[in-house]
Amino acid sequence: MENYKEYENFCINISKIAGKYVLENFEGKFEIYSKDKRNNLVTEIDLNTQKIIVQNINKTYSNHAIVGEEDKLKSIKDSEYIWVIDPIDGTTNFVNGIPNFAISIALLKDLEPIAGSIWIPWPNNEKSLIFSASKNNGSNSNGIKLNLIEKLNESLDEGAASSYSSFSSINGNKDRNIKPWNKVIKGEKRVIGSVAYEMALLAKGVIKFGLFGPASIWDFGAGLLIIKEAGGTIHNLDKDYNFISEFTSFKKLIYKSNDSLSEVIYDWSGQFLIGNKKIMNLEDSEKFV
Amino acid sequence: MENYKEYENFCINISKIAGKYVLENFEGKFEIYSKDKRNNLVTEIDLNTQKIIVQNINKTYSNHAIVGEEDKLKSIKDSEYIWVIDPIDGTTNFVNGIPNFAISIALLKDLEPIAGSIWIPWPNNEKSLIFSASKNNGSNSNGIKLNLIEKLNESLDEGAASSYSSFSSINGNKDRNIKPWNKVIKGEKRVIGSVAYEMALLAKGVIKFGLFGPASIWDFGAGLLIIKEAGGTIHNLDKDYNFISEFTSFKKLIYKSNDSLSEVIYDWSGQFLIGNKKIMNLEDSEKFV
Repeated sequence: MENYKEYENFCINISKIAGKYVLENFEGKFEIYSKDKRNNLVTEIDLNTQKIIVQNINKTYSNHAIVGEEDKLKSIKDSEYIWVIDPIDGTTNFVNGIPNFAISIALLKDLEPIAGSIWIPWPNNEKSLIFSASKNNGSNSNGIKLNLIEKLNESLDEGAASSYSSFSSINGNKDRNIKPWNKVIKGEKRVIGSVAYEMALLAKGVIKFGLFGPASIWDFGAGLLIIKEAGGTIHNLDKDYNFISEFTSFKKLIYKSNDSLSEVIYDWSGQFLIGNKKIMNLEDSEKFV
Repeated sequence: MENYKEYENFCINISKIAGKYVLENFEGKFEIYSKDKRNNLVTEIDLNTQKIIVQNINKTYSNHAIVGEEDKLKSIKDSEYIWVIDPIDGTTNFVNGIPNFAISIALLKDLEPIAGSIWIPWPNNEKSLIFSASKNNGSNSNGIKLNLIEKLNESLDEGAASSYSSFSSINGNKDRNIKPWNKVIKGEKRVIGSVAYEMALLAKGVIKFGLFGPASIWDFGAGLLIIKEAGGTIHNLDKDYNFISEFTSFKKLIYKSNDSLSEVIYDWSGQFLIGNKKIMNLEDSEKFV
């Protein structure tokens, strides 16, 4: 049996190198470029960080394919193994000086996430946190096992005070009157501006549930695995926010076409309702379809 | 002439002590209490931090009055000088583990803010930033002068990319269809969950404008002075979001009654539209009344 833990450790190690570089350049001077549309920024730091990650992957797993957010990175290799990476998720925060951004790295095998990591800045001694997971091995944050099920029980035990403090997370531009959201909304809302950062907080049990996307595979790859391995529930939603299924793999969601697979993956976007089963109170799909 | 800078330095020094204590307890175990209403939490860390601040003020300025968020702190002293303090603004973030919270300390003289500081956690070497100001002395962040007017020119010079990245900040529960907001909204929205934290980011030029409140005097005291001294514009709004005047003092806003002044101050709440004159494009009041 393949050692998925090896890939997870590899993700953690590149995260450390890439994270150090990104944090050193936070609040520094760098080139900012505008991409195709409004609010879609890229900086030389995003580009250099992607290079660092790609070089490391190529060195260690030279036969794997890579799809990344920046520079329209789509591998020409044909491989069962595809890395999906976002060197800085939350570039607008990074550019303007809000310390809420993330580095997301994930490995898909036949379109199922099998290993991944999210790095985020944090005001502790290491100045960052690294969340990681590999399939069937659980999730960790700086070496500490994450457990969303336990986290929920803790919450309920503490009684009134903490049940008032469940956060929801949603895209700031999104209309809140959408079907599944109305069913689950409670607690205070936060709009942070980085899907991967918010998914890391969700895996930690800090944000109790959220509606994420539309976003790309590099925003979701690591986060979905980390949350799933921590005991969270992930609902695929179609573009009208109808429930499709519980998430296990991108295979169901990414339709084959004549284009190359990495082309299709690059262009895909999706949305998910993510959280803790009990808090979302969505035991079956009927409840919000 | 009175040396307001002395008060500012005093604020910075207590901020350091209080901030160290708060950060050491972030993500630790502590008692959580629910206050009068939903989502209004207080922890033993809030209470202890307030004690640290109050003890320091009493030791140095024994004849000054103090009004604080926690423990219904309302001074019985009758003084022209009133300290308004929030030991942790963003307690719900603090409790749940989101590193967006602040310590706000301000000194009012005859209800006008004359000195103040905001401490926030930050992923740098000191693990925090301290913003401070005193009347007519400008604003600083960890010793670096803040200049919102320069910041705006920088922004405009950089052209398209950075003009796409102006943040607005608004209470997550608030309807966005309010009069002044519709006039000024642009850029991406963030909901952070701490008025003082958001005002610090605004003073830094990170958030370009925001609608703050309804919130209490201890949320606003330091932030309004820091933003004003950095060159920002502050509009008082009434409860229906009509423009009243540019902010200079709480005197116009806090009406005398038979109750003691610190009682009235404790119960007051208000809202402000804050930002940079040019970015808000609100040169005169007619534009949004």
